[in-house]
Amino acid sequence: MHEFQLINRYFSKLTNDNKSSLNLNDDVFFDKSKKLVVSVDTYVEGIHFVNFKKPDLVIKKIIRSSISDIVCKGVKPKYYFISGSGNKKSFTPINLKKISKSLKQEQNKYNIFLCGGDTSYSDKLSFTVTSIGFSKKIITRNNAKLHDDIYVTGNLGDSFVGLNILKKKIYSNTLVNKYFEKKYYLPNLHLELSKKLLSFANTSIDISDGLITDLEKLINKQKLSYVLYLKNIPISQNLKKLLIKKKLNKLNYISQGDDYQILFTANSAKSRIINKTAKSLGIKISKIGKICSNLEKPKIIDQKGNKIDVKRKGYFHRF
Amino acid sequence: MHEFQLINRYFSKLTNDNKSSLNLNDDVFFDKSKKLVVSVDTYVEGIHFVNFKKPDLVIKKIIRSSISDIVCKGVKPKYYFISGSGNKKSFTPINLKKISKSLKQEQNKYNIFLCGGDTSYSDKLSFTVTSIGFSKKIITRNNAKLHDDIYVTGNLGDSFVGLNILKKKIYSNTLVNKYFEKKYYLPNLHLELSKKLLSFANTSIDISDGLITDLEKLINKQKLSYVLYLKNIPISQNLKKLLIKKKLNKLNYISQGDDYQILFTANSAKSRIINKTAKSLGIKISKIGKICSNLEKPKIIDQKGNKIDVKRKGYFHRF
Repeated sequence: MHEFQLINRYFSKLTNDNKSSLNLNDDVFFDKSKKLVVSVDTYVEGIHFVNFKKPDLVIKKIIRSSISDIVCKGVKPKYYFISGSGNKKSFTPINLKKISKSLKQEQNKYNIFLCGGDTSYSDKLSFTVTSIGFSKKIITRNNAKLHDDIYVTGNLGDSFVGLNILKKKIYSNTLVNKYFEKKYYLPNLHLELSKKLLSFANTSIDISDGLITDLEKLINKQKLSYVLYLKNIPISQNLKKLLIKKKLNKLNYISQGDDYQILFTANSAKSRIINKTAKSLGIKISKIGKICSNLEKPKIIDQKGNKIDVKRKGYFHRF
Repeated sequence: MHEFQLINRYFSKLTNDNKSSLNLNDDVFFDKSKKLVVSVDTYVEGIHFVNFKKPDLVIKKIIRSSISDIVCKGVKPKYYFISGSGNKKSFTPINLKKISKSLKQEQNKYNIFLCGGDTSYSDKLSFTVTSIGFSKKIITRNNAKLHDDIYVTGNLGDSFVGLNILKKKIYSNTLVNKYFEKKYYLPNLHLELSKKLLSFANTSIDISDGLITDLEKLINKQKLSYVLYLKNIPISQNLKKLLIKKKLNKLNYISQGDDYQILFTANSAKSRIINKTAKSLGIKISKIGKICSNLEKPKIIDQKGNKIDVKRKGYFHRF
């Protein structure tokens, strides 16, 4: 069963009526009266990370992925809890030292600190991270407006290529491999942009599952649709070169997840302030499409102007 | 490595200097400025619960065990997050329905509500529960005073017997089995006592690992010792009968964990108010010992007045 259906069927009725939990229908929980923002995520070996051969990088990815949920809502993360289940092979003194060092580096980078957690024995390695921030206001899902522009930060697809290099499904030279692997393990969060988002974004999400899946999550309760322009979807110079060299289709690389870029919508009148903010912060922000009426089917316009219908869950169907 | 050593060696330095995290040296995190109390716990099948044949009971035990950490600190839990990792066998529609129903019942019983969580695939079933409460003040560990009385709520040992009945290591008749199994799965939390504790307890902890282990955790940073009186350690009529019938030693049943009773210390001048509170709430509260100088070894005085030295980690050594 899809996670969304599962949540809806069995757990939605367990939330409070006052909507502070956003009906489990967001990546974060927001208690308006306490100004509290909480995100809880579980990461399992073999699913959310390939393996634990590089504990230092895995831990960084996990922490960034967790606080990313808060950052994309316009909130500064303040502290976190990490619970690890694993065996002695995963938690050797050497690995624990690496984990501790990585956490310290992330703490310095994002100005967060560890508050607690738990360790337990399991054959299967997994981590649950609880991240906490405080804010009077957050940007929620399901708040896009008709005719909003759709924006995304940074580049998409690099992380997916990195994952495939790690899985030995894509081969390139060492330097290029390193670039993509780094993009997979160390997503660049836009903490500086976070607070500013509150002033222009109507709705936002971080791209963890993939551009299309997350765009659909973003508007899933709303009677809206969207059009995206493939040529405007930002990819790195390295990915551009790779696509040309290996004759790969851009469309197959821009919606595969693990990007941890911020996807948001804003009124077209905000276009100038968004461009200005992007320049002043040195962050790439690309306008990639528009929110439209749900009388139209969700679609992507490719480089040649052809319409590509989007099937649910981010799979494409070409006409 | 013992969890405590592990935390100290690798993770203590990652906490904030302002002591809000209590140096990872407590079961809960307390942010005084935000009045926020957080507890994070992981429960793994085969370790923290025997198996998942009774999802309804396992879920109740997990929720109670998690909020117990907050309740014993004098704080009312307000909401919780639950993340489950498991496979399709654990999360069948029937089981999900049972989980949902159990959560609903616990919510009604303890006036808490679900705020979020996560589901992920794993061969090994585990749950991580994050419980949150709000309070200006909490009762911390490591705050016992010399000559404090040591108190415990309810009865000890029933849960351990229940576990052994489930593991088929102890046999009794169906009715008695049911009594102990219920004690194992459904610890009775003293929510009504919680707020009152703030007015008389110097330090407190819930007994999850066992009376001695948790008493040692309670005072672990302090240069203090303790004496306990075996005859004063409260056990149920059912356990009393079982001990007599099977010729078992009380000492081996009162410090085995999973009791979820509250262990606390208080100045002897508080004795009257504690007895009065116990009576008015209808909660059994027993004075079981005294905090003493660490010039004395920790010990238990048995029914015959013999001294039993306590070895670290709750193991007994008889003289």
